[in-house]
Amino acid sequence: MTPVWFMRQAGRYLPEYRALRQKHSLLELCHKPELAAQVTLQPIERLGVDAAILFADILLPFEPLGLGLTFSAGEGPQITRPVREAGQVLELPPVDPATDLAYVLEAARLAARALPPHVPLIGFAGAPFTLASYAIEGGATRSFTLTKRFMYSEPRAWHQLLERLAELVGAYLAAQARAGARALQLFDSWVGCLSPADYATYVFPHSQRTLELAAASRVPVIHFGTDTAGLLADFARAGGDVIGVDWRVPLDVAWERIAPASIQGNLDPAALLAPRAELERQTREVLARAGSRPGHIFNLGHGVLPETPVEALQAVVDWVHGG
Amino acid sequence: MTPVWFMRQAGRYLPEYRALRQKHSLLELCHKPELAAQVTLQPIERLGVDAAILFADILLPFEPLGLGLTFSAGEGPQITRPVREAGQVLELPPVDPATDLAYVLEAARLAARALPPHVPLIGFAGAPFTLASYAIEGGATRSFTLTKRFMYSEPRAWHQLLERLAELVGAYLAAQARAGARALQLFDSWVGCLSPADYATYVFPHSQRTLELAAASRVPVIHFGTDTAGLLADFARAGGDVIGVDWRVPLDVAWERIAPASIQGNLDPAALLAPRAELERQTREVLARAGSRPGHIFNLGHGVLPETPVEALQAVVDWVHGG
Repeated sequence: MTPVWFMRQAGRYLPEYRALRQKHSLLELCHKPELAAQVTLQPIERLGVDAAILFADILLPFEPLGLGLTFSAGEGPQITRPVREAGQVLELPPVDPATDLAYVLEAARLAARALPPHVPLIGFAGAPFTLASYAIEGGATRSFTLTKRFMYSEPRAWHQLLERLAELVGAYLAAQARAGARALQLFDSWVGCLSPADYATYVFPHSQRTLELAAASRVPVIHFGTDTAGLLADFARAGGDVIGVDWRVPLDVAWERIAPASIQGNLDPAALLAPRAELERQTREVLARAGSRPGHIFNLGHGVLPETPVEALQAVVDWVHGG
Repeated sequence: MTPVWFMRQAGRYLPEYRALRQKHSLLELCHKPELAAQVTLQPIERLGVDAAILFADILLPFEPLGLGLTFSAGEGPQITRPVREAGQVLELPPVDPATDLAYVLEAARLAARALPPHVPLIGFAGAPFTLASYAIEGGATRSFTLTKRFMYSEPRAWHQLLERLAELVGAYLAAQARAGARALQLFDSWVGCLSPADYATYVFPHSQRTLELAAASRVPVIHFGTDTAGLLADFARAGGDVIGVDWRVPLDVAWERIAPASIQGNLDPAALLAPRAELERQTREVLARAGSRPGHIFNLGHGVLPETPVEALQAVVDWVHGG
């Protein structure tokens, strides 16, 4: 049976999550281990998924790094002290995830303990490139102009920044595994803005180092990106037992390019807003392209959209489980 | 010698454009043929490019379609009466580009007349999918949620909408050719948000129809998209003598997939913000990947960024021209 879980399955589409958000900000939910564990568990029974993903945010390491992190009303992140000068990189304070992000690890422990034994907890972190892009841009961007300018203009500081992030994230993922995560996912969500040549030069070695540190935990590691149709072979070569792909490449075509890794994906999250028959058609199409080959984890190509009906996700789980 | 021009070469990076924008809104510049022609000509001598692209906006047809078009301070478009219900599609008024967009055609005539004979004018329009996404979303989007929901939920109205847009855009491009444009470019800028299967079902026939109408003008037609790494073969099959590709696929790899078409691209616009040596390296890399094969038009993978130094574009033109 193909296992299934959904990125951002603990989130705004769930009424019980929105109820908690009435009382607590996003950062409060992350900072309080009992609440973060509770949110982590919310979708498990509701959806019948095969894994839980820890409730946290990829940008939490920015707090101990002194970059300043807030979330505006639409939940877009704002970095109040973005990295804009090469000199700022060496001034970033040392961060030890075991103490500086202890609250995340405590949430992982609580969630892992509360989950039924057949439902593994997945820990996660942002990849060096995606974190660096937020740190430099100061928030969401479409063009990644500041990031690329920094990368091209200050290659030395760029590599120092990504080395710092790789060590931090690698240690953070390993700590989550020790806290009870039985799989780990590295989110390189925005890496698809890069040319294959820039990926190879500016990102690949740092993703590889991060994934090497994560692999030392001896739990399966998922390496996820979007918009990676032009990068897939290199992206997979950087590491990861499982490669997460989006809907922009058919699953079977993607799988050929990432061999011998396993694959996770790749339904378009917008398909969950479609009429039930169209959603079923697209879900079965993903399953058909995976075929009988073992090693497919069903997921979306990116996170659950806030306007997604709970019943749509439940229906997908049923179809994937053979219904 | 490889010809070179830049998407959005008439735009905010140019001081003389910004000076005009002090006195006129974006829509005013579009609406007044003398001003639009003047802006079209601005980059020609400055940069030494081999083609002029008409100054206009892909969303201008929304005015006669009654959708309401404004541009906010950051120049993001706002559609005041977006298409959200299937019933709205059949109520869209008939549009005749020859009269309803006569001011664009007049700008094309003026610009074509004023250009030196060795610099052709390129006319352009938005492709049915990209126009529909703006019409439905009401502005810029990252997730294309409303667009895809409409597409999946109201396939009949979706196809009616794209058929309307295909006929309108096809006629509009043909009218630009009659007004003096010696090449035409169809911008399907956002098509890369789609899976290959959705592209084939919901978009391909309408792009094909548009490009067929444009091809009847017997001028070269450029079919441009971004984020098309997963779609390229189908995208090229929809039509176009030249396929525009972005930096997410190496030029030679893209060229194999779109054969036998010519190719336009594919420098990352962010490379123009890099130090000169890095910009030169990336420019020469694009040229090297094109090799000696005829049929390469040098361009960026998307429009010139507003923060681009004029001198960087001048340097690229020199390198492409053999400097």
